[in-house]
Amino acid sequence: MKVDYIIKDAWVYQTFRQCFEKREVAVSGERILAVSPKFAGACDRIIDGSGMYLIPGLIDIHMHIESSMTYPKEFSRLALQHGTTTVVADAHEIANVFGMEGICSFMDQETEMDIFYAIPSSVPATSWELETPGAAIGEEETRQLLEDDRVLCLGEVMNFRDLVPEEPDGLISKPDAALAHKADTKTLRLIRMCRSRRGRDIRIEGHCPKITGMDLNRFIFAGVDADHTQQTPESVLEKSDLGMFLELQRKSLTPEVVEAVCSHRLYENVALITDDTMPDQLLEGQLNRILLAAVQAGMPVEKAIYCATYTPARRMHLDDRGMIGPGKLADFLLLQDLDTFRPAAVVKSGRLVSGSWWMAGSAGKAAEQADPKEEEPSAVSTVCSSRFAADTIFPPHFYHSVHCRGAVASDFILTAGKACTSVLANVIRIGTFGTATELVRRRIPVRNGVICWQEAGLCLAVIFERHGRNGNIAAGLVEGAFQKPGAAATTWSHDSHNLLVLGNSPEDMVIAQNRVIALQGGYVVAAEGAVAAEALLQVGGIINDGPLEKLAKDLGRVRGAMAALGYENNNEIMSMSTLALPVSPALKLTDYGLLDVKTQKKVALIAEECLDV
Amino acid sequence: MKVDYIIKDAWVYQTFRQCFEKREVAVSGERILAVSPKFAGACDRIIDGSGMYLIPGLIDIHMHIESSMTYPKEFSRLALQHGTTTVVADAHEIANVFGMEGICSFMDQETEMDIFYAIPSSVPATSWELETPGAAIGEEETRQLLEDDRVLCLGEVMNFRDLVPEEPDGLISKPDAALAHKADTKTLRLIRMCRSRRGRDIRIEGHCPKITGMDLNRFIFAGVDADHTQQTPESVLEKSDLGMFLELQRKSLTPEVVEAVCSHRLYENVALITDDTMPDQLLEGQLNRILLAAVQAGMPVEKAIYCATYTPARRMHLDDRGMIGPGKLADFLLLQDLDTFRPAAVVKSGRLVSGSWWMAGSAGKAAEQADPKEEEPSAVSTVCSSRFAADTIFPPHFYHSVHCRGAVASDFILTAGKACTSVLANVIRIGTFGTATELVRRRIPVRNGVICWQEAGLCLAVIFERHGRNGNIAAGLVEGAFQKPGAAATTWSHDSHNLLVLGNSPEDMVIAQNRVIALQGGYVVAAEGAVAAEALLQVGGIINDGPLEKLAKDLGRVRGAMAALGYENNNEIMSMSTLALPVSPALKLTDYGLLDVKTQKKVALIAEECLDV
Repeated sequence: MKVDYIIKDAWVYQTFRQCFEKREVAVSGERILAVSPKFAGACDRIIDGSGMYLIPGLIDIHMHIESSMTYPKEFSRLALQHGTTTVVADAHEIANVFGMEGICSFMDQETEMDIFYAIPSSVPATSWELETPGAAIGEEETRQLLEDDRVLCLGEVMNFRDLVPEEPDGLISKPDAALAHKADTKTLRLIRMCRSRRGRDIRIEGHCPKITGMDLNRFIFAGVDADHTQQTPESVLEKSDLGMFLELQRKSLTPEVVEAVCSHRLYENVALITDDTMPDQLLEGQLNRILLAAVQAGMPVEKAIYCATYTPARRMHLDDRGMIGPGKLADFLLLQDLDTFRPAAVVKSGRLVSGSWWMAGSAGKAAEQADPKEEEPSAVSTVCSSRFAADTIFPPHFYHSVHCRGAVASDFILTAGKACTSVLANVIRIGTFGTATELVRRRIPVRNGVICWQEAGLCLAVIFERHGRNGNIAAGLVEGAFQKPGAAATTWSHDSHNLLVLGNSPEDMVIAQNRVIALQGGYVVAAEGAVAAEALLQVGGIINDGPLEKLAKDLGRVRGAMAALGYENNNEIMSMSTLALPVSPALKLTDYGLLDVKTQKKVALIAEECLDV
Repeated sequence: MKVDYIIKDAWVYQTFRQCFEKREVAVSGERILAVSPKFAGACDRIIDGSGMYLIPGLIDIHMHIESSMTYPKEFSRLALQHGTTTVVADAHEIANVFGMEGICSFMDQETEMDIFYAIPSSVPATSWELETPGAAIGEEETRQLLEDDRVLCLGEVMNFRDLVPEEPDGLISKPDAALAHKADTKTLRLIRMCRSRRGRDIRIEGHCPKITGMDLNRFIFAGVDADHTQQTPESVLEKSDLGMFLELQRKSLTPEVVEAVCSHRLYENVALITDDTMPDQLLEGQLNRILLAAVQAGMPVEKAIYCATYTPARRMHLDDRGMIGPGKLADFLLLQDLDTFRPAAVVKSGRLVSGSWWMAGSAGKAAEQADPKEEEPSAVSTVCSSRFAADTIFPPHFYHSVHCRGAVASDFILTAGKACTSVLANVIRIGTFGTATELVRRRIPVRNGVICWQEAGLCLAVIFERHGRNGNIAAGLVEGAFQKPGAAATTWSHDSHNLLVLGNSPEDMVIAQNRVIALQGGYVVAAEGAVAAEALLQVGGIINDGPLEKLAKDLGRVRGAMAALGYENNNEIMSMSTLALPVSPALKLTDYGLLDVKTQKKVALIAEECLDV
């Protein structure tokens, strides 16, 4: 067998013992040929790994490329630098805008990193009665996606009530409730389809924050056996005992949760994931940041590596990777220490894709130039194929997706009955940390039938349906956003990505909203009658097709401009964008109006009209 | 959801923590609905599990049903009693006799236990040039089997040289050797087929005793990443570090090997398996015996349970079983203690299939009578279907498979050149333990051209090709078999299952051989001119289609009769039958003559003809 190069004297990660041993690693084509304490025979392409740690490429099995507002090829370039060599992407943002065509536009892109896909299970996030997305993913699309070898799971099943019927008496149901269980909900149909089409091959991934006890049992019984939402020590134990696989993202990596994982040795049942990585964060790191967070929260470094390499591969039945061994893909990192997880070199499928430390000798060049395509490619069945001339990254019409009229100042006037002097309004209150909101009631003066929300220190949020479907416009009041006059507008508003404008200055709101339409997608802040900052998201209104470095810089300015207007949150952009996300607690706004997330019932903006103040 | 019954107050095995907790388990149809410390709500079908241990059904992922000389339905009946609820069977014995038709005759049988299948990779064990089986399994058969959802792996790849080219300089090869690697060997083609047809879904199981270092790396690189042969502490560590999954059978479960597994915590990478269970052993136990052996060799009981339930399920991508949790198949055992692993009750797919302790109350009856077919059956694609009227268990011609002539006394006369007075013969020496033989040379007197092997204290083994293909007859001399006059004959002679007769009395050899033909398959011992004991194996010459209890009794008599004739081995039947197995060390006999197993070269019976003694 042909050996392309050998890495000598590195500390090589031993997956099944979770420790390091000094080993030599021989690479042949895109795979590892052999691992040995010492090879006999000669090889003139030797790379000296002395003092380095060699670990498998990081594998992120729950993430959304669109959270970085970029496209697969650019994501691959950046994430590879941080050592992530495989991801399982749930492209549910682009699916909300363009449906199957959006998913295929991702899958069609060749990337150096391996990108596998989840079938978005919840597009739209709620239903056509509650919000208007650009497209939906239903049974027919799911059937098509199941034919693609790169599809590994049904992604993020979150619609709890679609799976678990309400049964008032706890465990035991009446015969009619038993019938209800067999009800033909969309999600149950999708799960059945995944099970019958590919048998044991397809994983069903879930999203079940705070669900416990009998509800949790039923959710798992319905087929969903992974969860990536925020965990507590108690939820880790309960879910793990019930056979649910835990995907820990940063917010779950508290010392208490990590202590629960470590003290019960639950490593087999845990993987580290990113979920969402903002563009500026992606410049700093990807799954390696989460690895670091796990170690900082108290997880032994050898266990954290295990949970970022082997367990995620196994969860997704990716038996060809996740460890350093013969026959596995030659996906690995070289680290100078185990403190920062900033790789000195990253090798994907045998090829050096990042890092220059071994470039001095000819051996480095060999690795850099190795042709990973040497082996016969295995046949991959795919449902997608490029259907446009490739002079742009996406199909031309992806660049023209904002179909709504420009706002005018009168769009931001709320009215009440002529006679009343004030209203009691249902208001979205945002917090300074995270994306959860709460419903609060505020009394607002009314003059000549006009609700004077600015006088109550509130902002107005207005959503313009922008997929050209129904022209819906809906408004809600927000407390805790801008404190100074100004506005922001964006098409990056989860999950339907309609055009959201938020502000307390109608003039600036018009400017921001109009500018987003002119850009055909983006994030714009306006203040004092002019655009203060903007970032271009010209693909479907959610993705920038240029270099991420520039986008991150622009978004940094957007963030700065929002903060300058007094928006106080650990992530201003996410906080504003998720005002439109009707599956995240507690009161949100869609193009149909205010929505109580828990009950999925509409909420009137005006709770009460008052004749006397 | 409908609850059929609840088991209360049992100590329930917690898979991911490998411990027991007091839990209640609710069963609905064929699956577990929920597990909880305490259910709310009422259920009138309660089973009191106080003081009992509830563990998942045992899963045996490497075994051969034919080793028990029985058929799937009967195997299922017995193994279920011992708590084995799922097996992955490699039906390579019946495949050696009837090919695909043999495999389908197994797969067509409905069983209460779940039987999945391995594709036999080595039928015939060697090649048509070295032995004559009844049929072969090649690429076309493999292609067909891959379409069946019950096929989980390519079984027991053992032909090392078919995968790994000889490369004299160790690691680095010349370009021409690199070409050799791409050689189109049958086994490489089968592995490629398994990988391209079902992607990551199919496991490649191996057989690689004593292979180490670069050879082991290359074997794994070729795609084989499990081994079930005898291990040592060193092999456990080396194979595990290289990513090979270890399937430990009884002979591997020494205190030293178990200590290696435990001290390095390799449980994730280890499963317990049976490989071969003789009929009389099957009456006593199945995988539960191996579980006990692991514990007796020092493995903590909670870890041994893990390696007999969860890790084997995961290895085979059987995500629907292997633990007690919602949505999993309701396959479990109740044990009165953790000492013997003799289940007090066995539940398969929600139904009580063995054990009567809970039968007193109506709850027990409910479980006993529960209809596991209540849920919609999932579509299973299968390549097999019954093609005969079902008044016999197997197709009629399976009962007429011994196609060779009856022996006559002259078949057992060996001749040499007229002039010589003795020969130096290559002789198979059998041992008193295990199935390995060695080549020894013995001087044997010759009178009038007749080799007087009886005078040298030897036995004669003769193989009659019996599949009706070429009528081959071949002879070899054996040392260490019968010490008193007598003979045995059988069609159960691995792997080609030709008719093997072994003895030192030509008269008894004729009687035994003729009787096996009359029975159309069996194990017969003859002594003093009459049949001394016999067991009927009338299906393909290797399987008895009646109750196993009777067969075991008959085989006990066969064993006793062999021992009475002075055959000294821990397993007389296996020792004799594997005289014909050309992949087990060291000198064996096929219908083409003596074979050196290591070199796969034929060996002459007469090494040297001597003119003077």
